[in-house]
Amino acid sequence: MSDKIKYASVRPTRSMNLLSHREMESLMDSHPEVHRLFRECALAVLNAGSEDDDPELLLNSFKDFSIELSPQSRGVKLEVRNAPASAFVDGVMIRGIQDQLFDVLRDIVFTHNKLSEHGNFDLSNAEGISDAVFRILRNAGVVKPERIPNLVICWGGHSIDRLEYDYSKKVGYQMGLRGLDVGTGCGIGAMKGPMKGAAVGHAKQQMHNGRYVGITEPGIIASESPNPIVNELVILPDIEKRLEAFVRMAHCIIVFPGGAGTAEEVMYLLGILMHPDNRDIEVPLIFAAPEEKPEYFADLDHFIRFTLGDDAAKYYEIITGQPEQVARLSKQGVERVKRQRRRSHESYVYNWQLVIPESMQQPFIPSHENMAALALNKDVPAHELVANMRSAFSGIVAGNVKPFGIEQIREHGPYQLKGDAEIMQAMDALLRGFVSAGRMKLKGEYTPCYELSH
Amino acid sequence: MSDKIKYASVRPTRSMNLLSHREMESLMDSHPEVHRLFRECALAVLNAGSEDDDPELLLNSFKDFSIELSPQSRGVKLEVRNAPASAFVDGVMIRGIQDQLFDVLRDIVFTHNKLSEHGNFDLSNAEGISDAVFRILRNAGVVKPERIPNLVICWGGHSIDRLEYDYSKKVGYQMGLRGLDVGTGCGIGAMKGPMKGAAVGHAKQQMHNGRYVGITEPGIIASESPNPIVNELVILPDIEKRLEAFVRMAHCIIVFPGGAGTAEEVMYLLGILMHPDNRDIEVPLIFAAPEEKPEYFADLDHFIRFTLGDDAAKYYEIITGQPEQVARLSKQGVERVKRQRRRSHESYVYNWQLVIPESMQQPFIPSHENMAALALNKDVPAHELVANMRSAFSGIVAGNVKPFGIEQIREHGPYQLKGDAEIMQAMDALLRGFVSAGRMKLKGEYTPCYELSH
Amino acid sequence: MSDKIKYASVRPTRSMNLLSHREMESLMDSHPEVHRLFRECALAVLNAGSEDDDPELLLNSFKDFSIELSPQSRGVKLEVRNAPASAFVDGVMIRGIQDQLFDVLRDIVFTHNKLSEHGNFDLSNAEGISDAVFRILRNAGVVKPERIPNLVICWGGHSIDRLEYDYSKKVGYQMGLRGLDVGTGCGIGAMKGPMKGAAVGHAKQQMHNGRYVGITEPGIIASESPNPIVNELVILPDIEKRLEAFVRMAHCIIVFPGGAGTAEEVMYLLGILMHPDNRDIEVPLIFAAPEEKPEYFADLDHFIRFTLGDDAAKYYEIITGQPEQVARLSKQGVERVKRQRRRSHESYVYNWQLVIPESMQQPFIPSHENMAALALNKDVPAHELVANMRSAFSGIVAGNVKPFGIEQIREHGPYQLKGDAEIMQAMDALLRGFVSAGRMKLKGEYTPCYELSH
Amino acid sequence: MSDKIKYASVRPTRSMNLLSHREMESLMDSHPEVHRLFRECALAVLNAGSEDDDPELLLNSFKDFSIELSPQSRGVKLEVRNAPASAFVDGVMIRGIQDQLFDVLRDIVFTHNKLSEHGNFDLSNAEGISDAVFRILRNAGVVKPERIPNLVICWGGHSIDRLEYDYSKKVGYQMGLRGLDVGTGCGIGAMKGPMKGAAVGHAKQQMHNGRYVGITEPGIIASESPNPIVNELVILPDIEKRLEAFVRMAHCIIVFPGGAGTAEEVMYLLGILMHPDNRDIEVPLIFAAPEEKPEYFADLDHFIRFTLGDDAAKYYEIITGQPEQVARLSKQGVERVKRQRRRSHESYVYNWQLVIPESMQQPFIPSHENMAALALNKDVPAHELVANMRSAFSGIVAGNVKPFGIEQIREHGPYQLKGDAEIMQAMDALLRGFVSAGRMKLKGEYTPCYELSH
Repeated sequence: MSDKIKYASVRPTRSMNLLSHREMESLMDSHPEVHRLFRECALAVLNAGSEDDDPELLLNSFKDFSIELSPQSRGVKLEVRNAPASAFVDGVMIRGIQDQLFDVLRDIVFTHNKLSEHGNFDLSNAEGISDAVFRILRNAGVVKPERIPNLVICWGGHSIDRLEYDYSKKVGYQMGLRGLDVGTGCGIGAMKGPMKGAAVGHAKQQMHNGRYVGITEPGIIASESPNPIVNELVILPDIEKRLEAFVRMAHCIIVFPGGAGTAEEVMYLLGILMHPDNRDIEVPLIFAAPEEKPEYFADLDHFIRFTLGDDAAKYYEIITGQPEQVARLSKQGVERVKRQRRRSHESYVYNWQLVIPESMQQPFIPSHENMAALALNKDVPAHELVANMRSAFSGIVAGNVKPFGIEQIREHGPYQLKGDAEIMQAMDALLRGFVSAGRMKLKGEYTPCYELSH
Repeated sequence: MSDKIKYASVRPTRSMNLLSHREMESLMDSHPEVHRLFRECALAVLNAGSEDDDPELLLNSFKDFSIELSPQSRGVKLEVRNAPASAFVDGVMIRGIQDQLFDVLRDIVFTHNKLSEHGNFDLSNAEGISDAVFRILRNAGVVKPERIPNLVICWGGHSIDRLEYDYSKKVGYQMGLRGLDVGTGCGIGAMKGPMKGAAVGHAKQQMHNGRYVGITEPGIIASESPNPIVNELVILPDIEKRLEAFVRMAHCIIVFPGGAGTAEEVMYLLGILMHPDNRDIEVPLIFAAPEEKPEYFADLDHFIRFTLGDDAAKYYEIITGQPEQVARLSKQGVERVKRQRRRSHESYVYNWQLVIPESMQQPFIPSHENMAALALNKDVPAHELVANMRSAFSGIVAGNVKPFGIEQIREHGPYQLKGDAEIMQAMDALLRGFVSAGRMKLKGEYTPCYELSH
Repeated sequence: MSDKIKYASVRPTRSMNLLSHREMESLMDSHPEVHRLFRECALAVLNAGSEDDDPELLLNSFKDFSIELSPQSRGVKLEVRNAPASAFVDGVMIRGIQDQLFDVLRDIVFTHNKLSEHGNFDLSNAEGISDAVFRILRNAGVVKPERIPNLVICWGGHSIDRLEYDYSKKVGYQMGLRGLDVGTGCGIGAMKGPMKGAAVGHAKQQMHNGRYVGITEPGIIASESPNPIVNELVILPDIEKRLEAFVRMAHCIIVFPGGAGTAEEVMYLLGILMHPDNRDIEVPLIFAAPEEKPEYFADLDHFIRFTLGDDAAKYYEIITGQPEQVARLSKQGVERVKRQRRRSHESYVYNWQLVIPESMQQPFIPSHENMAALALNKDVPAHELVANMRSAFSGIVAGNVKPFGIEQIREHGPYQLKGDAEIMQAMDALLRGFVSAGRMKLKGEYTPCYELSH
Repeated sequence: MSDKIKYASVRPTRSMNLLSHREMESLMDSHPEVHRLFRECALAVLNAGSEDDDPELLLNSFKDFSIELSPQSRGVKLEVRNAPASAFVDGVMIRGIQDQLFDVLRDIVFTHNKLSEHGNFDLSNAEGISDAVFRILRNAGVVKPERIPNLVICWGGHSIDRLEYDYSKKVGYQMGLRGLDVGTGCGIGAMKGPMKGAAVGHAKQQMHNGRYVGITEPGIIASESPNPIVNELVILPDIEKRLEAFVRMAHCIIVFPGGAGTAEEVMYLLGILMHPDNRDIEVPLIFAAPEEKPEYFADLDHFIRFTLGDDAAKYYEIITGQPEQVARLSKQGVERVKRQRRRSHESYVYNWQLVIPESMQQPFIPSHENMAALALNKDVPAHELVANMRSAFSGIVAGNVKPFGIEQIREHGPYQLKGDAEIMQAMDALLRGFVSAGRMKLKGEYTPCYELSH
């Protein structure tokens, strides 16, 4: 095929450019499984700009893609074969992609080695996990000393329509004009729109140090590859640590319409905000949708109020249309956070104070067994229920777009979710809405990966 | 109207931020005519983002707009009343626009004062004019020491369709990916597309010092206001000095489809390139159009060959489609220019060597008398003919969109152009093509401002 | 001689690195007198580090020194022949000296051309002079926008002993530790000590942008050549403009012991501070001497009180020893100035408000006639008397170390100064003190260049 | 006492300014022994500028000095009580000292914790040690990616006379003029001279990013505290790792006269250079002494030739006087190293290729037993003999100025060194020369801490 580059050798730019001999050796020696992960994530990064969300298609088209480390006393080198031609300009790798390739090396191979072999990280308890997340972020350079609070995390679906995409871009533009930085989960749709918009806003304000932070994890990067505009990229080990990174780094969170993944994120956040220990901690949260398509949040709001009570709705504000207003509220939220952090002598860059229930920190493996075991009943306390719903949505996302989930579904058929009739019906309504609105998948007809019963 | 900001006071950022008391006084004392010009240009800058090209409409909508200088020992301040709200974010002027406002002050009031009162500039001869253009550019900070050749000047119409606009953006993107900087005449259409594209390309290459140079003149700025992405703006005193600035600063020139203005620019450039003294000087020139719409350059090429001979066609290369190829050729052209300048110890930033016939440096006033007097005959030497054709197109642009020309037409009816039957018919065919393709004006039906006869 | 470099060609670094062709031509065409001045000043700069203050000796040792401009389209070049070897390291000119060479070119040839030919500067009145001084300083980059007040001007003699030199260095060190920048008149002694001390203080505070401003004039530069540590150099056209530059740029002034030149500077400053229009303007002034040698200021204070009255003494504070205290008071003075400027919306970088009597702005030519005509009587108003005393000291400095003055004395014998018996006796006592303390000249026995009578 | 500051609280600037909660806790929990070490090193840094080399005196004068960590979510803080007043300016700690304080915290507490608890470093073999040294240096920011070879390591005594000190300063000045960076072992004498000289040279060349690297270890820092000019400081865990850091970072080494410590360093380096595996590796080595005092290197050269053979002398060049020539040769050496590293694809910042015999990497504990056991006989192979002589000199330095050694001597009397009569006599002659030249100690009469026998 003509759209592959047969061979290229690249050197590190910002990450990994000063390794010891031992560190290079340990990179070389890494476990085959880690190397497989690295190869997949690298391919995702090199495939940036593709409009596809099917990781299998990508892997199949680039079966002959290989990426190998070549250590040299001067520093490590990556030798890339049969990579997507779109990552190169006249035979030279695009700088933004080259940076990200070494970010992936840093976060997958290096950090993972660190994790496993030397036992540096202690993931056995809540504190240890929060500590590890912080250190991964610091190692990636995405938490930096002396930064004034300014980061708005944007969530939302990758499978959204043009109207919603343009709206997210407009909100991003208005944020950029107000000097706000943007962090998202990488990928296209509601993750790309705000960044592109913000970039134009920053340019008009002649701001040359705008941050476009991509926070991802190995399971999702293949279907949501980072845009090369992302100038700070970090890959957390799993979904839960990625979610923790989002909420501890955020000075404000905007949710755009999405699908099950977005619902998962909202459940996760509500699970934290509703925790009594977090009562006094400011985490501004805005749900924003275009004026013409308010249903996503109308439905979600209804679902939340119905399952968790009206009290749960006081943690967010819903805005339709008015991109300027969304940006204005974000700016105000960021200011409130700054004042609160200063008052409480809390770090500006990482919200240590926020309590995250340990049940939400531990990885949820979307096996059929685990999915079936989720208690989705009203007699479970609200904060547990919301955590379980988070897991349920998480599993559905996996079944839709993640290699592990897709594999599970292929082998064992749809996940079986059980619970109270009322809750299951509400969930069913919500999910059917997502399906009929095309929010589950980018292309082709959607076959549900789950069955609900009560 | 609600989309005006009643009052704002702004201070200089990059330009004009350190004036002597006398300099401030001389700004205050400037001639009413100069102040009128300043007010109009300032309004154009503040109106950036508008999609209109009708300066009268703009001036009428903002009759109550005022801008006044307020000197302070600390430095000058501008007091703005009833300015377009689009220039502000939450009551604060957008930084890119604020910068440009003081660029306008610098180039209109300051430079013009300098021009007239102190006789610093000697515009009576070719050398003196080239010197003045250089010093205006240096004062504006758009020629800078120690810059490696990298600037691609893009010409083309403001009134182009979506297809052509998108194409110019794609070319800009490919240039940005190759690290090329972009200069244009400001305004929308083919002047905005390449800049927006280049900005994305630069972002993907993580280049944070990309240059987006806007080169304009008071007569055109109102209909072609600078985009706030422009991070270097200079306003030359008239069309001819602006054209000279373009060609002396350019390390490569790309022409996109346009209308009469673009034809004027091409004639100007051919008039220079065909000059025998410029035989050995490299000025890469590319005509680029989308694959689906090759007519503009097909027609122009035909016109050039017919009126000036096939030899004239060797100065340019026509490319249809292939945005990557256009960018690649530009890059190669820039490299050739760099080598030549190094060999000949010529400045990288200003092409002093290029001979510009004095007839093309002197302002052409599009009065009916001057238009009628243009010799458009084959018995005139080719280099004179091309200069006269440049003037003819220049007059037509004025009649279309410039306040002075519009005024003339309103008073005296269409311009009368006379010449050889053959040439006039070729010109007629070319201009009719522009009209029928909607290249003369953004909105409404086009009434020709000229009549051709032989 | 082995300590000359036969030939070197140097290009501009920070100054003069982007000239138009005309500007280069005008540099080439400059008047022989201007070129002579440029050659002398250039030689002084190249001779930095010499411990001599005899300009004749320097000129004689380097009779074969030449410096010629060579224009190139790329930019100007200087061709230097038989320059002092001490300005070079392994055949390459020391960067600090190279910078200063082009500063000299800028301020002597360029500015002087501008002055004379184009009539840009209007030196016929007080306002015009202050404006010209500002523009020369701005052109030299020594006044810059957005600088917080921080500049302490240090005056004092070049012919001081080790004890006084070390003291000035200690004060400079304490200023550097407090982040203060230093400006002096260039040369050795009390002009070099504070800079060297400040450089160490800045280094310990890890400040890398400390300013070491040298403010000089063509008549003095030969005997007081700038140290290469000076990273901002400006050459004003004459003594009076240099003095005006000092006081308008200063945020605090420290005077160290010196000779007649220092007395001149003090008289100049008192003439301004005592002016009724300057009543409310803060100009902190400290006289500082080592504990072991308090006489200089004891004598000067006595002279001031005797001739101008005790009131004149309230404008300064005398400190002996205590370098920390001197630096602390300077810092406090600078803070007071900052507050006052902010309150009165005055520029931070140039004290426009200060009224300088026109008699002190106009150059004083130390001819025998002018010296003899100075009214040094008590019946002259105090502010006139102090101005005349300034001129008298100025003439004595010229007779001691400046080419013009030395020439005058050689031809016509000592200057004749006349005045009230009381004043002349006081002056005589003061000057005798300077002579006996070796403050008049660096080497050899001192033959007075003046005679006082009444 | 008035020269103590009762209380001050300081925050990190460049080091340690972004710690996780766990990291802060582990700093708090550190072992009392580590805290004692930290306190001593911190006191040494705060005492910079003292001219004393007696660590006991220092510790006794500041018995009431305390330094405590105070963790905050925002970041760590140090609370300092009864610190030397010389570290402060108007109550604010000098920035260079503040930086160094946190460098000490980083290298003592943080690194040491890392070393011991988490087993990250593997010090059981040569490779592991070299790796650990690299990672400590990287963590301290003293090895940096993309630095061109430029670092000249200067060795020499702290107890040298004014003549030798001034000479080392002159050499430093000539190095600074040539743009070379300087690394030393901190402290005064030959460690301070080259830095101060280089700083002036850098200033004259208008270089603002000159490096003044201090490489020290806990045992020596108390008697050789870093000058605040040091802008990169690292504290290695022990002598041997510090020596390894020196030679792997060096692009050239200049040795100035010193005492036993300098002899130790020379023996260490010869032990490496003479190793057959290092035959082809460039390590330029210059012994430089003032013209008037050539004895130190005459004696050392004699000793080396006598004990190790004339071949050993080909690794160094001796220069007396001629500071320019020393700097010129250093520059040439650095260039040779650059070419060799480029050819062999070796890192510019750390000489991985150099083989260091493991016997020279392992810490030598100067107990009486170990000292007595050193084989100083000619029948030992040359490379072992030189290693043993290194240890012998190391022990003598400890007995002179290091707390542990002083303690040992106090308890057990002088060290007993035994060996061949010839070698012992040569050593005796060398050491007597050091003693009679006052090279062993700064103040007071010197009582040898060793006895030689055969």
